[in-house]
Amino acid sequence: MGEEVKVFGFWSSPFTHRVVLALRLKGVSYEYREEDLFGNKSPLLLQYNPIHKKVPVLLHNGKPIAESLVILEYMEETWKSNPILPKDSYDKAMARFWAKFFDDKCMPAIWKAFWCPENEREKAVEEACRCLKTLESALNGKRFFGGEAIGVVDIAANFVGFWLRTIQEVTGLELLSAEKFPNLFKWTDEFVNHSVVKGTLPPRDKQLEFNKVIVAKYEQGEIKA
Amino acid sequence: MGEEVKVFGFWSSPFTHRVVLALRLKGVSYEYREEDLFGNKSPLLLQYNPIHKKVPVLLHNGKPIAESLVILEYMEETWKSNPILPKDSYDKAMARFWAKFFDDKCMPAIWKAFWCPENEREKAVEEACRCLKTLESALNGKRFFGGEAIGVVDIAANFVGFWLRTIQEVTGLELLSAEKFPNLFKWTDEFVNHSVVKGTLPPRDKQLEFNKVIVAKYEQGEIKA
Repeated sequence: MGEEVKVFGFWSSPFTHRVVLALRLKGVSYEYREEDLFGNKSPLLLQYNPIHKKVPVLLHNGKPIAESLVILEYMEETWKSNPILPKDSYDKAMARFWAKFFDDKCMPAIWKAFWCPENEREKAVEEACRCLKTLESALNGKRFFGGEAIGVVDIAANFVGFWLRTIQEVTGLELLSAEKFPNLFKWTDEFVNHSVVKGTLPPRDKQLEFNKVIVAKYEQGEIKA
Repeated sequence: MGEEVKVFGFWSSPFTHRVVLALRLKGVSYEYREEDLFGNKSPLLLQYNPIHKKVPVLLHNGKPIAESLVILEYMEETWKSNPILPKDSYDKAMARFWAKFFDDKCMPAIWKAFWCPENEREKAVEEACRCLKTLESALNGKRFFGGEAIGVVDIAANFVGFWLRTIQEVTGLELLSAEKFPNLFKWTDEFVNHSVVKGTLPPRDKQLEFNKVIVAKYEQGEIKA
């Protein structure tokens, strides 16, 4: 009997995409279940992630795991093919450091830059750009954060890899450009054109339309930084 | 030649204490270097943790690692004795989930409850108590979060184990009590009386005095939630 691997996700969620991408990179077959995050989460999602009530959840042989970085670590231990973490303990610590930096600092800073009140914008943009500059230096001339192959930091930073530029396109606020952060900008092209990544990302047009919905929600006060 | 293990820390930092406690639990010899966090961080700390400029930093054979949870994972891989993470991959994912929950949700919520503006207090206290209730349920009748032995979740939750009750004593704001959260309260006693933990915690009187300094800083507007 085959193993049960289910992902509870949302098509436009970079956190969901992390899990889906890692499963595809590792060649693990899975069933995908789309969640309606706008007021209609499934009873199963709430049962499997009662603390955060968020996607993604990975269900493996009946056992649920939440939090995308925790899921990635679990996947790395469970499915050994195509490692997404370095073998060496110190390199692994560095990869974990950068993935954590992305979640703790970059994501909130970038989010705030887009969705903060107008009078906080300048400072928020500065902080977001500081984070992007730090990412640029972490890339340090490599093709991917993981070196020649995509690793956990590339997967964690997928929001910058794909979503950021689509949000810039809709809002007109440019944080990341080839002029400001050439290496990071080049990396976003490498990332979205990677054969496995390409097949897992939302269609660009659909994402742009969805971004407009988010912008409208922001303008109606439904989204705050 | 022996290996070089240095900790850059601050005596009253629960994050520093995580690293020191794990080293002691594992029986690893180390050199400790106290940092002056109030305006006089050492050039070495800034060199070893240029991104966050914070304690703790673990220096192992010349290589620096920052972020206490990242350090704990590195230690677990480097020094196998007295494991602080479960062997089973799923149990390990759960331990990582709870350690992350502690850092992402509990710590900020508790911190906010103490140091927010008065008009936000009630809501902040509610949120902090929700987090403590979740921790109480995660403990689920066990002696430690790790079961019979202290594990990474106990280590991560050390702020609740020791610091919280000392801050309550100084501020008069009681979030955690034996009445409200009996299991968690009992756990804090188990934690501080554990033979290794006991030897690594700051002296209670010194901590209480330091808390008064923090309260004064808060009242002067130097600390915000």
